Amino acid sequence: MARKPIRSDLGWSTVDRIVVRGKDLPREILGTLNLGDMAFFELTGKVPDEKQSRLFNAMAVTLVEHGITPSALAARLTFLGAPEAMQAAVAAGLSGLGSVFVGSMEGAAKMLSSGKTAKEIIAENKRIPGLGHHLHKPVDPRAARLFEIARETGFYGKHCALMEAIGKEKAMVVNATGAIGALACELGLDWRAVRGIGVMARAVGLVGHLLEESRQPMAETIWHQVEAQATQHIEKK
Amino acid sequence: MARKPIRSDLGWSTVDRIVVRGKDLPREILGTLNLGDMAFFELTGKVPDEKQSRLFNAMAVTLVEHGITPSALAARLTFLGAPEAMQAAVAAGLSGLGSVFVGSMEGAAKMLSSGKTAKEIIAENKRIPGLGHHLHKPVDPRAARLFEIARETGFYGKHCALMEAIGKEKAMVVNATGAIGALACELGLDWRAVRGIGVMARAVGLVGHLLEESRQPMAETIWHQVEAQATQHIEKK
Amino acid sequence: MARKPIRSDLGWSTVDRIVVRGKDLPREILGTLNLGDMAFFELTGKVPDEKQSRLFNAMAVTLVEHGITPSALAARLTFLGAPEAMQAAVAAGLSGLGSVFVGSMEGAAKMLSSGKTAKEIIAENKRIPGLGHHLHKPVDPRAARLFEIARETGFYGKHCALMEAIGKEKAMVVNATGAIGALACELGLDWRAVRGIGVMARAVGLVGHLLEESRQPMAETIWHQVEAQATQHIEKK
Amino acid sequence: MARKPIRSDLGWSTVDRIVVRGKDLPREILGTLNLGDMAFFELTGKVPDEKQSRLFNAMAVTLVEHGITPSALAARLTFLGAPEAMQAAVAAGLSGLGSVFVGSMEGAAKMLSSGKTAKEIIAENKRIPGLGHHLHKPVDPRAARLFEIARETGFYGKHCALMEAIGKEKAMVVNATGAIGALACELGLDWRAVRGIGVMARAVGLVGHLLEESRQPMAETIWHQVEAQATQHIEKK
Repeated sequence: MARKPIRSDLGWSTVDRIVVRGKDLPREILGTLNLGDMAFFELTGKVPDEKQSRLFNAMAVTLVEHGITPSALAARLTFLGAPEAMQAAVAAGLSGLGSVFVGSMEGAAKMLSSGKTAKEIIAENKRIPGLGHHLHKPVDPRAARLFEIARETGFYGKHCALMEAIGKEKAMVVNATGAIGALACELGLDWRAVRGIGVMARAVGLVGHLLEESRQPMAETIWHQVEAQATQHIEKK
Repeated sequence: MARKPIRSDLGWSTVDRIVVRGKDLPREILGTLNLGDMAFFELTGKVPDEKQSRLFNAMAVTLVEHGITPSALAARLTFLGAPEAMQAAVAAGLSGLGSVFVGSMEGAAKMLSSGKTAKEIIAENKRIPGLGHHLHKPVDPRAARLFEIARETGFYGKHCALMEAIGKEKAMVVNATGAIGALACELGLDWRAVRGIGVMARAVGLVGHLLEESRQPMAETIWHQVEAQATQHIEKK
Repeated sequence: MARKPIRSDLGWSTVDRIVVRGKDLPREILGTLNLGDMAFFELTGKVPDEKQSRLFNAMAVTLVEHGITPSALAARLTFLGAPEAMQAAVAAGLSGLGSVFVGSMEGAAKMLSSGKTAKEIIAENKRIPGLGHHLHKPVDPRAARLFEIARETGFYGKHCALMEAIGKEKAMVVNATGAIGALACELGLDWRAVRGIGVMARAVGLVGHLLEESRQPMAETIWHQVEAQATQHIEKK
Repeated sequence: MARKPIRSDLGWSTVDRIVVRGKDLPREILGTLNLGDMAFFELTGKVPDEKQSRLFNAMAVTLVEHGITPSALAARLTFLGAPEAMQAAVAAGLSGLGSVFVGSMEGAAKMLSSGKTAKEIIAENKRIPGLGHHLHKPVDPRAARLFEIARETGFYGKHCALMEAIGKEKAMVVNATGAIGALACELGLDWRAVRGIGVMARAVGLVGHLLEESRQPMAETIWHQVEAQATQHIEKK
């Protein structure tokens, strides 16, 4: 069986050169691209123009910090046991960004890029990704703001309109993941990269949580509190 | 025993508001801060000014993409078995950012902020973090460029000078992690946050690797190739 | 909204007692149950009898060591960067035990416990979990041995027969994951626990790989070898 | 530079054979070794005799289930977001088994195998691994039982005596990790493998927690409870 060759086009280096996706890292990238631009460049091979940069950075920034989430708690509880390995605590926090939370963004992007109409999508799907929020209703202020930035940068197009039409038809709020899924389509991003935007953004936020945890810890208190609650129905003797 | 209270100041939300570190996320942050600025804001509670933004983004961008690394390989090999859970593949890739690779950045920041002189540091440490590179010598072009940006933004100060003095004295190249450790000190960042800059930046790069892996896979070939090499000394019968 | 109470029945302790699933750990479990029995007890709340013990342990032992796998490679490559955090290297190795490898075991258990006939299953599924192997054919010697142990212990029943009937009908080998899925059904295990048997067994094997890696390392060589292969198509200048 | 060869002696397979550490897996291992024996075999290359088997299994079984721990909570919180990837939830739970919890076992084994006397060890170490427990005092019933099994199997030797002498001298309880560290020395295990015993055992327990979580969930309640506590000091408006 002929095997696929081992090949990567992301980067290479020699004694005096470091090249990322065809650009000289020190001379062409450092000091020029911000972290969001670099993420866009990694994912698409293209340096974003000013408007793409503004929109993409806004999408990623939206996902950085959500306060106390299961993901932040998993990271903090992991850090309690292994403070010498904060990378492992970030890893633990990222591991839960699956189908329930960040996955809906990917689902929205896939759905909106399928070429189907709002009616078809509604008919075919019981649960539509990117709609609904337990707290933010009738408007998710992040989605509203992201669509606004999309308009300002000229990226409010058919995918955004489709997402909003579906929300209207279902009388449900378009949430942040729905908006980001739509914007990813407008920017021409591969839907397979969309979950990744959430993962990289949350890595930023988790580092923030671990820094706070190292100064103002909560994990040990959570542990003892939950342990007591979880076993209070047991007569211990 | 009185327990520490459970308390976080990173973010909170109500029906119509989402606040991160005291700022309204949709109105004050989205469309204004780029992803690197947001990271700086998460770590320090302060919005970076233009110069801080340029320098901090350059530091983070340096660490995004290093081509084929052990970390990228771990992520790709994980993705091969669980393509439905790309967050777990990123997590696997981050888990190896420990003492050997990214840790040196933290070590450099800690060392440079200790208040000791170059002589004292050299006398006390057999192995000095932030010095040496297997490939980039006598100059690591990333370090050179980062110090240049530090000068351009007015942040080349005593910590940068100390790092370069140590390198000169030891006749070893100051590598990218040494430069970033020094710059983190100049920006007043907590050394405990420094490893985190590497972790968040690499999360960006790992998403890039997984997107490439999904289109142009190498993990399966690596597996079969290494398996054959690893067992070729065994007479299998 | 009334929330679900926080409650666990797995274990609790007082100053002088440690109880796991209702049994006194030091007095009733230690020295009596082996590690596989303890796993069975954790999953079912019942101490296995001698026959259950023999069969369950055989199932778990089957999954411990598969030589050089993507999972073992991910663990070794992670260990290279963070040798101080071997738990994180095991975690990285486990992260890839998803739909492609270990997941088929879960799929087989779910399928076999669905109450459907071989014909129905074949008609409804294009790809049947637990069938086929790239190397072990026409017989997977692990599956053969596991079914033999099932017969010896009186656990070869309708689920085993169904799995073998499906294999025969499709003219494909029943692999180890197919046999284990069937045996899990015979033992009355929840299909949701079946992937877990693979995960715990592989954790054992990964510790073995990391111990070997600490004595006879391969990760660094793999890294440099793959890096060279992956970038050889690039004219570096 | 000559590179180390890629080589592993753990396992290999051909069309009809699967060999682990020199033994035929289906014929010589399955149905014969239990899961703890297999772990011992993985780590040492030797099949344990009956006494070694009893002792090693007791050591591993001790570490499987500790009720609600930070590690179990991290796993459950991860599972909440990615129920489709339970391996990632186990990985998250393992990631925190670092210096604070499981690491003390490794430290105890290293200390006891150093050849030093109780006096020297006490003089040189401010904090001695394997001593003290927040709850189980003046006796950790697990340690007592493990030393008892060591006596029953003829493995209570100088390392156990040394550990107990240190505890007596310091007037502190020898905890389970101290006993296991000592027993690992008596069995001749490499101290680098000792943390691994905890990691593999806990993987078993974490699968138990995730199965309970899938039936009787607590993660969502914990999330909302902690979020409310953590932000109650903020005037949200």
